Amino acid sequence: MNSIARLSINQQTLRNWKIPELLEGCVAEQIPFVSLWRDKIAEIGLDETVDQLRSTGIKAASVCRGGFFPAVTTTQQRKNFEENCRAVDEAAAVGAGVLVLVCGGIADRDIDRSRTMVIEGIERLLPYAEQAGVKLGVEPLHPMFAADRSVIVSLSEANGIIETFRSRYLGVVIDVYHVWWDPAVSSEIARASGHIFGFHVNDWIVPVPDILNGRGMMGDGVIRIQRLRELVTTAGYTGPIEVEIFNEELWRMPGIKLLQLIKERFLKSV
Amino acid sequence: MNSIARLSINQQTLRNWKIPELLEGCVAEQIPFVSLWRDKIAEIGLDETVDQLRSTGIKAASVCRGGFFPAVTTTQQRKNFEENCRAVDEAAAVGAGVLVLVCGGIADRDIDRSRTMVIEGIERLLPYAEQAGVKLGVEPLHPMFAADRSVIVSLSEANGIIETFRSRYLGVVIDVYHVWWDPAVSSEIARASGHIFGFHVNDWIVPVPDILNGRGMMGDGVIRIQRLRELVTTAGYTGPIEVEIFNEELWRMPGIKLLQLIKERFLKSV
Repeated sequence: MNSIARLSINQQTLRNWKIPELLEGCVAEQIPFVSLWRDKIAEIGLDETVDQLRSTGIKAASVCRGGFFPAVTTTQQRKNFEENCRAVDEAAAVGAGVLVLVCGGIADRDIDRSRTMVIEGIERLLPYAEQAGVKLGVEPLHPMFAADRSVIVSLSEANGIIETFRSRYLGVVIDVYHVWWDPAVSSEIARASGHIFGFHVNDWIVPVPDILNGRGMMGDGVIRIQRLRELVTTAGYTGPIEVEIFNEELWRMPGIKLLQLIKERFLKSV
Repeated sequence: MNSIARLSINQQTLRNWKIPELLEGCVAEQIPFVSLWRDKIAEIGLDETVDQLRSTGIKAASVCRGGFFPAVTTTQQRKNFEENCRAVDEAAAVGAGVLVLVCGGIADRDIDRSRTMVIEGIERLLPYAEQAGVKLGVEPLHPMFAADRSVIVSLSEANGIIETFRSRYLGVVIDVYHVWWDPAVSSEIARASGHIFGFHVNDWIVPVPDILNGRGMMGDGVIRIQRLRELVTTAGYTGPIEVEIFNEELWRMPGIKLLQLIKERFLKSV
């Protein structure tokens, strides 16, 4: 990228910072967007979050996260639905256009039924989101998270779900870490055209230091990030480009230094 | 399964045993097949391996492994080819009908080019294998190994390669650990009909204790093994069913106890 005008910082990338520190850091480094996590919003409260966004001028690109639809009991399904409605409300309140959906892992050892539950859960949530003016972004996760985080493991599956509903409030969030390995990634990004609600960057380090918290900084791994960014651009996406890195080593860096490194790599490797 | 008549033990499942111990263990537990690794064959020598197989009556179902086709230089590509020819020769010598191909990770940070190199490598090796009467079994690995072990990450890709060559000496090896997450697994197993050269069982534990060595014993995870076994059976596969588990905890068990546990789980969960 030739500027940081579209740079968004996912809050988990600076896990040790609360929202006030994150927003101050972004002001200092002239970073325009953040993606907020619900547990961090809860720490300082929704009203305070809204106030701080307004006073700093930093925009919330998205809220993480809704989803986790598969559940064994209908009671749990109803609870999940209610939690997802609150997530939609929070996304609306902070002015984030998008609620990221991590769809949930396997319930009751049945991956096929769990996939159906995801579709049923989206069907139930979508009218509420449409009413609130919040877009739902289905983020397919890497297949290594199929059991415990998302039975939706490919753009192909996510696109299939989106085409079922044909709503302008339902689309995909594309994270390079989750989709880079897919031989169909080019055609599936093109297929998502008009329904791409987010683009996340980071890298795949070899060997992976940790399944959950071993993502790399852009440029440190094997993902052809620029090619994927071009594909997403060709498909018409012009929104924020979010840096989402879960990495123990980076979390130990001073936050401002990490933001500076992110900017440098964003300009060089995205 | 209602008997162990098709049970094969992949040698890595009992990593601490050399070939003589493995074969003795299989004789004691009346297990008919083994899958041998080339480094273990090298330890005692090819002739000794052949003699021991003959004297114990245990059959070698397959040899692990050939492949690793992508390489940056043509010199390295030629070396890989020569190594693969030796692997074919060893498979022929021990009477294994199948050489398992782990196709190799990314060369030079270019996954697309690396995928092409796999096809080129198979094209080069296939006539040699046909001449030797050894089948080449392309084993797609889980996408989390795309960078460093196999750019071929799905049955769909493997089937595509096989259909390119239309040789009865080229097929797929299906390992439940590598393919269970795939929404297309049922249709792709059917598509592989007539070209299934191996079926491997184990399980996906939640959470995964280790990327490489955290596979589970059948029944301990979330994979619907019996359903996959039925799909493979419907597709016409009647060969050995191989237990391939890389797991630090199981490696610490006494070998005979582990073989007994494998038999128990094979009858119950496969």
